[in-house]
Parts: sequence; C-alpha cells; structure tokens
Amino acid sequence: MASCGCGVGEEVRNKQVILREYVSGFPKESDMSVRSVTMKLKVPTEDSNMNKAIHQPLRGFGVARVLESKNPDYKKGDLIWGTTGWEEYSLIAEKEALFKIQHTDVPLSYYTGILGMPGLTAFAGFYEICSPKKGEYVFISAASGAVGQLVGQFAKLMGCYVVGSAGSKEKVDLLKNKFGFDGAFNYKEENDLDAALKRFFPEGIDIYFEHVGGKMLDAVLVNMRDHGRIAVCGMISQYNLDKPEGIHNLMCIVYKRIHIKGFAVFDYFDLYPKFLDVVLPYIRQGKIVYVEDIAEGLESGPAALVGLFSGRNVGKQVVVVSHE
Amino acid sequence: MASCGCGVGEEVRNKQVILREYVSGFPKESDMSVRSVTMKLKVPTEDSNMNKAIHQPLRGFGVARVLESKNPDYKKGDLIWGTTGWEEYSLIAEKEALFKIQHTDVPLSYYTGILGMPGLTAFAGFYEICSPKKGEYVFISAASGAVGQLVGQFAKLMGCYVVGSAGSKEKVDLLKNKFGFDGAFNYKEENDLDAALKRFFPEGIDIYFEHVGGKMLDAVLVNMRDHGRIAVCGMISQYNLDKPEGIHNLMCIVYKRIHIKGFAVFDYFDLYPKFLDVVLPYIRQGKIVYVEDIAEGLESGPAALVGLFSGRNVGKQVVVVSHE
Repeated sequence: MASCGCGVGEEVRNKQVILREYVSGFPKESDMSVRSVTMKLKVPTEDSNMNKAIHQPLRGFGVARVLESKNPDYKKGDLIWGTTGWEEYSLIAEKEALFKIQHTDVPLSYYTGILGMPGLTAFAGFYEICSPKKGEYVFISAASGAVGQLVGQFAKLMGCYVVGSAGSKEKVDLLKNKFGFDGAFNYKEENDLDAALKRFFPEGIDIYFEHVGGKMLDAVLVNMRDHGRIAVCGMISQYNLDKPEGIHNLMCIVYKRIHIKGFAVFDYFDLYPKFLDVVLPYIRQGKIVYVEDIAEGLESGPAALVGLFSGRNVGKQVVVVSHE
Repeated sequence: MASCGCGVGEEVRNKQVILREYVSGFPKESDMSVRSVTMKLKVPTEDSNMNKAIHQPLRGFGVARVLESKNPDYKKGDLIWGTTGWEEYSLIAEKEALFKIQHTDVPLSYYTGILGMPGLTAFAGFYEICSPKKGEYVFISAASGAVGQLVGQFAKLMGCYVVGSAGSKEKVDLLKNKFGFDGAFNYKEENDLDAALKRFFPEGIDIYFEHVGGKMLDAVLVNMRDHGRIAVCGMISQYNLDKPEGIHNLMCIVYKRIHIKGFAVFDYFDLYPKFLDVVLPYIRQGKIVYVEDIAEGLESGPAALVGLFSGRNVGKQVVVVSHE
C-alpha cells in the first residue's frame, strides 16, 4: 500500500519484489529478490514496458492510495484496490482492473481478500456457477484458503451441508470451529480420498468447489450426484508439474450429467456492486468472518508466495507493504 | 418393429436377443444369444420383472406398432418409438419413454435415428449445451455416427466451421462429401492428435461435441479457445476398460474458462415437439440428410451391437426386426 505523504514529481526510493528468472516447477524464494530503485512520482506520458515480467516487480492484487492519475475518476488521496506491483510505489496501466474503495469501516486489508478478488471469486463461483439450492451437499477443497472459507460460509448461509478439506489440523479446526462447516478433514491424513468423501457424503456431492485438481478431483467425480456441478477455480496441486496427473473418472460426467465450469473473476467484475451489497452487511453483522495470514514487509513477500504452494499460510495470505 | 397382424390374446412365438452374461470389457457376440419363446399377446395385470437384465431381451430404442395398451393415449395400430426390447413382441412398462409417431411421410427407421433419440440428442446437445454462434469453430468426434452426422449438419446450417473425426476413409469421405463438413480426418491415421487438431483449427476450437473421450479429449483440451464449450454425449473409447485412460490437460479448464457438460437425452424430452418442428422441414427439403447402416433381422443384432465398439457401422446402426 503506497503512502500518500510524498508529493507528485518528487523522486523517491521504491522498494520492489522482482522476478529474477522465469519459474520452472514451484516457485522458490531464490527466483525472486527485493531491490530498491529510484523512481519519479509522475505518471509518464506514454506507457512504458509494463508487460515485461523478468526483472520487473511481480504483479498481484493490492490496496493503494492514489498519488496521481490521468483518469479523472481517480483523485489524489483516493483508496483503490486492484492489480498493483509488489512495490511501494506502483504505476498502474489504464487497462488494469481497478476499484475505488468506498467503505473504510472494515480493515483495508479486506480489499485484498474478502472484499477483493478472492471474495468476488467466491461469490461469482458459488452463486453464478454452482446454482446452489438449500439442503444441497457441498464440498470445498483448500477450504480454509482465501476463497474457500467464504464459499463455505455462503453455502452455510444458504442452508447447505458443507464439508471442506485442508492440509493441517489447525486448518481443519478453523473450518469446523470458526467457519461453521459441518465437517472437515485433513487430506494428508487420508490414504483413500474416495473413502474419506464417502464418509462425509454418504448421499454424494451436489456441488464441488475445486481448488486443487489431481487425485482429489478424481475421487470427487465418483462421489458426485446426478446433475452435480463443479466450479473450477484452480488446480493448485497440478501447477508447475512437468506432467499433470491423469484423471481417470471423467466418464462420470456422462453417467451423472455433471456440469464442470472453469471460471475467472475477470469475467464477473460487473457483479462487484451487488457483491458488496450482500457481503458488507454480513461482515458488519458478524455473520461472515475472515481469516488472514499477515506477513510484515515487502521483504517477506517471496517467502509468503512460496508458502502458498506448500500450504504454509492459514487463511488469506496478505503482505503488508505499509501501514497507514 | 412388431407386426400388427396378430390378435390380442393370441399366443405367438417371440424371437428375442437376450443377454447371457453380464459383459466385462467390450461386448462379444457370445455374450448374447437369439432365442424364441412363447408369449401371450396380452398386457398383464401387474408389471412382471422387467428390470432384470440377465436372460432377458436387451433393451434399446425401437419403433413398434401398438397391439394393446392400458394407457388410453395409445390405441391398437398406433405407431410409437421409444424403449423397446430386442424382440418381435415387447411389453413396455408405463415408466418407459414412449412417443407416438405422427408423421409417416419419412422412413419409419428414422424414428430410431434422426427423428428419435439420436436426433433429439444432437439437437439438445448442440443448441442447448453448446450455445453455438455463427462463425464458431466446431469439432465433432465419432462424427459420422448416429448423433455426430446431425450435429455437424446443424452446425453448418448455423454458419459454423465444422470438422469431424472418424475411423475410416469411407466415413471421412462421407463427412466431407455427403454431410458438408469443412474438414474431416481419420484419427487412426494420425500419430499426433494435437497436431491434427492444430492443422484443422489453427485458431482453436470453440465447441467440441464429445463422443469418444481418452486421448482425443486430452488433445482437444489444449486446443480449446477461451470460453469454449464441450458437450459430453459419450466416451465410447473408455467404456468397459478396466481402468480408463488418464486425462492430463484438465488445467485448461481453468486457464480457458472452459464449460464441460455431460448430458442425457432423457432430460430433454420436453424439446421433442420443437425438435420435430425444426428437423422435419429440413428433412423434407433435403437440407439435412441421414445415413443408416441397416442390418436385416434380429439374428444380426448381436454382431451389429459388437460392431459399434469397433466402429464397423457407417452411420446410424439399425436392426430391422420386421418390414411393414
């Protein structure tokens, strides 16, 4: 989050997390480095080379305060969330997704999570893709993550039976005790994922919110009910593998008339105002809670990113660049 | 097709194709046998054991003439199509799907194909599941089959670019010369399915009408365009395998926001009148053609069924039980 103390035109030191090499396999901390560069706080006349990834700051979703903008919608001092660089001061191209923050009675970090991209992802994925109905059986993998914890709470609010999987006892406890899931299990402790799913879903699964892919997806397919829906938000177990695992049970798609849909939040930005109307009251009334894993300082960014792939984070991983 | 010459209550010889053993692997002719039993042409007061599969006639979609019915909608002499037994005289339970045949200016065999279950499957699958738009790129596997040949012609009528795969030169010729596909290839002659698809779809595939599964599906996934749709009608290459092949490219579902939907015609019977309104004029005007592979006599049934799995049939496989 950029601070607003500096004046436009001033030259500042800008700390950045940069990508040193293209990543093969899962990212390592050594793929990134933190550097400090000199930067003039002035929007350039023409877009510079923003799309080059190597030796440039990583990009991600962040919260920032506007110092200067050519877009009349954004005035100095405005708070925004959207695609920013992993740096203290960021030049944001006009084409990037950007939302002005109107409600500041909630933590600003929420706009990287429950009120930002992961929140809208959960909202669009669950309500638009899964077509949920009261009483349906819902399974969520990576359920304590930035998106999963919300999907589970939306499903509970709708009157569904909700079970989640996660990768540690701490996360399983969180699912059951903090987010109100009906059940949860640690997939690392289950030798037979099919048996685990049958234990929690003797009647089968209506809705699967997919984050992991691989063996979990294969086990879910045989446990889906007729006309089941699978919203594919990610397949984190398969990213950066040289050869992804083979999925063997796709014939269930025919037998059970299963509906699978991959989606990305970018296609649902028009829902953002409606999403806020639904979620802000829930947050204020305490009907939805949100767990963040806060890492302090840009220097902690590389380790925090690497940790996502081993599941070290508990809840939405946030890196604090600056406190206001 | 049952003949109407016999009187109700009369005792007749009824030739049947029965299942001798549950099938493991692909069906063999020796799994079936043809027998002749004595049957009284009378609807019983209570349903007998219609669901037992072993030592009973195979069931499938056929055309028949009503001899007697407890349902007042069906009168003696009516022509119907729907679930019948592989036999000369069939007792059809009330729960079975049954449609009265109203239009007899087309061959009655069409009600096992283009005007029956395969036709409605193609219609619902293409228009309802694939949401096609003019100019889109459409790929169909098993494209000369009972369903595929129709999907291709629907797609051409809509102004799509259409390519099909099939398993022989004869079928490929049929696709190009009879059904008007823009391109077609013999998958058995392609060492690299991915390369074959890239040759025909340098811009990628918007719609894939899936009949085969396995390696073809894996190759299609990497060639799909963003927001592509896959209607899964069947996966014939995978049926009856002890362990289905692994599919490795499902991550494309996320990257490309792909929509995959398994479907069965049973869920779309309400579309049948609309389907007839669209397709009958096309048939009468010669805008849609249909190729059938006619086997004569119930005795040829087992070989015809086995042939489906090796692709021996060309077009919709029909077994003629009786000529009227």
